[in-house]
Amino acid sequence: MIIVPEKEIANLMTRDAAFTAVEEVFASMAARSAYNFPVVREAIGHADALYGFKSGFDRAALNLGLKSGGYWPGNAAKGLTNHQSTIFLFDADTGQCRAVVGGNLLTALRTAAASAVSVAHLAREDSRVLGIVGAGHQAAYQLRAVAEQRPFERIVAWNRTADKVEPLRAVADEMGLAFESVTLDELGAVSDVIVTITSSFDPILSAAQVKPGTHVACMGTDTKGKQEVESALIGQATVFTDEVAQSISIGECQHAIGDQTIRAEDITELGAVINAKHVGRSSDDEITLFDGTGVGLQDLAVAAAVVDLAVEQGVATEVEI
Amino acid sequence: MIIVPEKEIANLMTRDAAFTAVEEVFASMAARSAYNFPVVREAIGHADALYGFKSGFDRAALNLGLKSGGYWPGNAAKGLTNHQSTIFLFDADTGQCRAVVGGNLLTALRTAAASAVSVAHLAREDSRVLGIVGAGHQAAYQLRAVAEQRPFERIVAWNRTADKVEPLRAVADEMGLAFESVTLDELGAVSDVIVTITSSFDPILSAAQVKPGTHVACMGTDTKGKQEVESALIGQATVFTDEVAQSISIGECQHAIGDQTIRAEDITELGAVINAKHVGRSSDDEITLFDGTGVGLQDLAVAAAVVDLAVEQGVATEVEI
Repeated sequence: MIIVPEKEIANLMTRDAAFTAVEEVFASMAARSAYNFPVVREAIGHADALYGFKSGFDRAALNLGLKSGGYWPGNAAKGLTNHQSTIFLFDADTGQCRAVVGGNLLTALRTAAASAVSVAHLAREDSRVLGIVGAGHQAAYQLRAVAEQRPFERIVAWNRTADKVEPLRAVADEMGLAFESVTLDELGAVSDVIVTITSSFDPILSAAQVKPGTHVACMGTDTKGKQEVESALIGQATVFTDEVAQSISIGECQHAIGDQTIRAEDITELGAVINAKHVGRSSDDEITLFDGTGVGLQDLAVAAAVVDLAVEQGVATEVEI
Repeated sequence: MIIVPEKEIANLMTRDAAFTAVEEVFASMAARSAYNFPVVREAIGHADALYGFKSGFDRAALNLGLKSGGYWPGNAAKGLTNHQSTIFLFDADTGQCRAVVGGNLLTALRTAAASAVSVAHLAREDSRVLGIVGAGHQAAYQLRAVAEQRPFERIVAWNRTADKVEPLRAVADEMGLAFESVTLDELGAVSDVIVTITSSFDPILSAAQVKPGTHVACMGTDTKGKQEVESALIGQATVFTDEVAQSISIGECQHAIGDQTIRAEDITELGAVINAKHVGRSSDDEITLFDGTGVGLQDLAVAAAVVDLAVEQGVATEVEI
């Protein structure tokens, strides 16, 4: 059994490898050679923790396993990450445990890779301004991954507490990109691509704020009740997602489904665009929207990639199980 | 993170430790301080494998985690066990992965411990003859664990292919117990305790074959469609189980529920007897029946016990994750 500890992931995993892994598994899902198993998610009644598993099997890549973990709100006070994840891979031919991989950084990287894949396949080629809504832990990962996909010149950012966007400015500076903290109206008026990455339970971005031709990647909603954009925006957009079942139940589309702004059959898997089964964006005026809910197969895909890299680079620890 | 590999389990785990772990977790379940999460079980469409997880949380023992694995029918040809299990424990206070434990032998030991716990709490004190129905891989574990619970003098065994009971004779010889291969009629007529441990999809033991005062532990049924005893036997018995929800859906009681021989509210958790909330057996003529379906919490309990033993004995491997 191979162990890749959390502290090695940053040295091993690249944004390119995460992009490729996530793009391939979205394609495999849309081709029905990969599927996610039912999600287990429990409020365990101890330490206010939410705990569970996302799991699945990719028959093409032979990735089988699960990400286990959850949210422990008291961890920060102990110097630990509140979100704790560990990924377990199994040999699809024998069922033996093949690898245990630290999943904290990988979760941020696979989430950022998902919006990057959506931008690569759905944003206008001439996108120049990237808007980021939300400046929490994952925002910098989103900025780095998405900014590579188009010739962006300027980053605009909004956060409920405006001064919290400053760490994003530092990332933009490092990348040689202009950066501005703006209102939501301003952000919508200038952005060609918008990434929402919040934990909001109320819509932040309205349909009126988004200009024609924008690509919106909604990356924050992964739970019943959460919402980042007004339902009407989803009604105006051509909507894509990682997995339709999650999109309409715990993703950004749950509300638009609930108020009948859209139907499940109006939502296209991003993998269908990757597989050239769907055209994706069909005009420069179209608003495209990607509902990134986060599926277990993404976790398995990036974990398998990191195990390969660890073996290649001779840093994999092997233990008997 | 502590690793306890499969090959160390036999040296570490004792039947006593398994008995105590399972008895405590059954008590905790009945006291509502431990609960199992929904089971994930998937035919993955590769290698004819069934794969999934059983998971849960024991708030009293702070055992949190899952057993992952399944059934790979092609393994035997590769020199591997068809049933492959690995148990993962998490720190309930932080969500970090605490231990990875080989789960193959532990699965047999926790299943045997469950029927032993049922015998300890439900069989007549003067039980002298133990009947074993089924002589597969798990039968010897059942024999060893159950025979310790009462002053048994004689073992009678039945298997569809009679000569397959010979390995059980060797175990009985070793334990200094008389042993006989018998018909089902004979087995029922003389046994004070009967353990059924088959993978049958049709009832094997009929109500007419079981004499008053017998304790029956049905340990083989863990899937929709499986059945070891006639529904009428369940109707005549006072029925106990590890978890009612599993008993009526995938356990031995599924058929008796289906044909309305019993109702869910007629089934008592064995933990209630352990906790002295239910009297258990109330007369020497009563037939008691334990439906052992196998829950994730049992796996976590024995894995936590084995991790403690490994640490105590200095054989735990510690790796960074």
